[in-house]
Amino acid sequence: MQYRELSTPVLTVDLDALERNLGRVADLCRRQGVGLRPHTKTHKSVEVSRLQLAQGAVGLTVAKVGEAEVMADAGFDDILVAFPIMGAEKLRRLATIARARRLLVSLDSESAAQQLSLAAAAQNVTIGVLVEFDAGGRRCGLDPGPDLVVLAKAIEKLPGLKFRGLMSYFGNVWGTPEQRRAEAEHVAELVTRALAAFRAEQMPVEIVSGGSTPSAEFAHLIPGLTEIRPGTYAYNDLNTYYQGACSFEDCAVRVVATVVSTAVPGRAIIDAGSKTLTSDLLGSGPKSGYGYIVEAPDVPIIKLNEEHGYLDITQTQHRFHVGDVVTVIPNHVCVTVNMHDEIVTLRQGEAVGCWKVAARGKVR
Amino acid sequence: MQYRELSTPVLTVDLDALERNLGRVADLCRRQGVGLRPHTKTHKSVEVSRLQLAQGAVGLTVAKVGEAEVMADAGFDDILVAFPIMGAEKLRRLATIARARRLLVSLDSESAAQQLSLAAAAQNVTIGVLVEFDAGGRRCGLDPGPDLVVLAKAIEKLPGLKFRGLMSYFGNVWGTPEQRRAEAEHVAELVTRALAAFRAEQMPVEIVSGGSTPSAEFAHLIPGLTEIRPGTYAYNDLNTYYQGACSFEDCAVRVVATVVSTAVPGRAIIDAGSKTLTSDLLGSGPKSGYGYIVEAPDVPIIKLNEEHGYLDITQTQHRFHVGDVVTVIPNHVCVTVNMHDEIVTLRQGEAVGCWKVAARGKVR
Repeated sequence: MQYRELSTPVLTVDLDALERNLGRVADLCRRQGVGLRPHTKTHKSVEVSRLQLAQGAVGLTVAKVGEAEVMADAGFDDILVAFPIMGAEKLRRLATIARARRLLVSLDSESAAQQLSLAAAAQNVTIGVLVEFDAGGRRCGLDPGPDLVVLAKAIEKLPGLKFRGLMSYFGNVWGTPEQRRAEAEHVAELVTRALAAFRAEQMPVEIVSGGSTPSAEFAHLIPGLTEIRPGTYAYNDLNTYYQGACSFEDCAVRVVATVVSTAVPGRAIIDAGSKTLTSDLLGSGPKSGYGYIVEAPDVPIIKLNEEHGYLDITQTQHRFHVGDVVTVIPNHVCVTVNMHDEIVTLRQGEAVGCWKVAARGKVR
Repeated sequence: MQYRELSTPVLTVDLDALERNLGRVADLCRRQGVGLRPHTKTHKSVEVSRLQLAQGAVGLTVAKVGEAEVMADAGFDDILVAFPIMGAEKLRRLATIARARRLLVSLDSESAAQQLSLAAAAQNVTIGVLVEFDAGGRRCGLDPGPDLVVLAKAIEKLPGLKFRGLMSYFGNVWGTPEQRRAEAEHVAELVTRALAAFRAEQMPVEIVSGGSTPSAEFAHLIPGLTEIRPGTYAYNDLNTYYQGACSFEDCAVRVVATVVSTAVPGRAIIDAGSKTLTSDLLGSGPKSGYGYIVEAPDVPIIKLNEEHGYLDITQTQHRFHVGDVVTVIPNHVCVTVNMHDEIVTLRQGEAVGCWKVAARGKVR
């Protein structure tokens, strides 16, 4: 069945584009001499994780214990939970995973480390810890300096934990290639400062984990970086495109939708709203609305209700009719995928399969 | 277990508040002499639907065939699919539901009616049709006048369909009570004009379905309205609160989250981001961010990443520590609920059960 005949709205992925994306970033990492630990948050899929590991990924990244469980249950090993896990119930589940899998957890407080230690010790497992530093995004993470060493030393004293290294998210490396390069150079200074603090104490740092999709090509600028954790690169989206970090053809995931109403003058309404695309606006590029319509690039999606997408058709020659099928490239693919239980796989427009978005909705 | 001990992030509903909300709007409808056909999009829950029907609801509203299937499978009857359903696969499933349940579908084009007719006739069922008109929201719907009669007459000629009446969404009734009243009066004029067109042709209109939560209290201003379809009123949210259409205590649904990092000065980070709360901003009230923190109302959630909520703590006396539990009232509860597979039910802060968000993710 051709994608235009699918029941809509439906999330689709072009396998040729996906494979190109996976191959390109795997090559990029090899050339730069850094490991690739893809963040599975983008696809939440066992199948895509398997392809990433087959391309040489050193392990996987997740944000939630529930996501780690999905990936561990699928047989994958060496999983980084790149989020400070708090609370006895989640920590118990985390330690259970560590009984059969190599596990890393990032955190930035002694309090989080103590809780993790209690859970690990209770199940007699060892969990690797990466101490998070702030690379400029002002989200999580300690100042990249002696504070990191203090926490690392505290971790070394806690039962069930092993300090393995440092971790940061390079979300601030964003914008044009020039802006991203400049910010990556700033990150490089911070990483250098962080590593110097450990050298001063003769404390080895085995892993330095960083990255994101827009910063992936600048990994070589950051001395000491051992691995990066891009997520979006597998599928790509308008945010990546408008930063010049992928081409249009690299946007592998598209939402196929149907025009359901043209009754109101100047409007066409599609069956994809905020419960299909999400309300995420572009963080890069033109403030053009809620997605890009491949068949009519001059038609913005100006508004979303939960199940309705509002197309402004006043400035286009394209004619919309009830029943027309349109293809939408999402602004931010990671959140769009998270709205869907499954994704239809395509080869040259033909539906060839369907993957479960297995880790979708694993909020804990 | 008290809600503060739950594993986070977690969606919770206070049953006392829910029951008050359901009772108040059921009473309001009785006093105004209009039927109540709650939109289940807000809760997507069999249990809440059952409570609404027990309070005298005339039927249920859904937006998707998959949602109708969930409600029909739960044994509920008289379901309005308030969305123009297009495409053979969905129409086939819709007709299958109509074999055992009374079904209404809204649409605004002859093309949609013809497709629906084919599907109904193929399974030898009759599906009721409401013709949608535009009450000022410029989304779906024909101009409220003779165009409606033309489509109604076309529907009467199509096998498997029965014209039952008119339908509109009063999304434009929004804002302060005064703004909402004025807009409801405008809607009243449009409804009057629509009904006059049918009277001129001696064509009876059995059902006139309108509404939304912010317009519910003004239903009596709209002559001929037979039923309203509020959804949000069951749970309420900040959008409803800031319009003066509910009190704070009526916001029955809250996301319980944990502070996971305070490492960056001026920031506290919670484990609820856009995959837990959604990126929906307030459409009413102050542009205050991504939700309201009950424990620290002066602390805005200024930014969300997928799993991180950024709290700006520079203007508060409240002290945040890693491990602190906070309670967030969402901006727009309908989309927040849709992120979660389940909702924990509370009585006076004590967890007493857990409901499945059974129709979540039914995008088709």
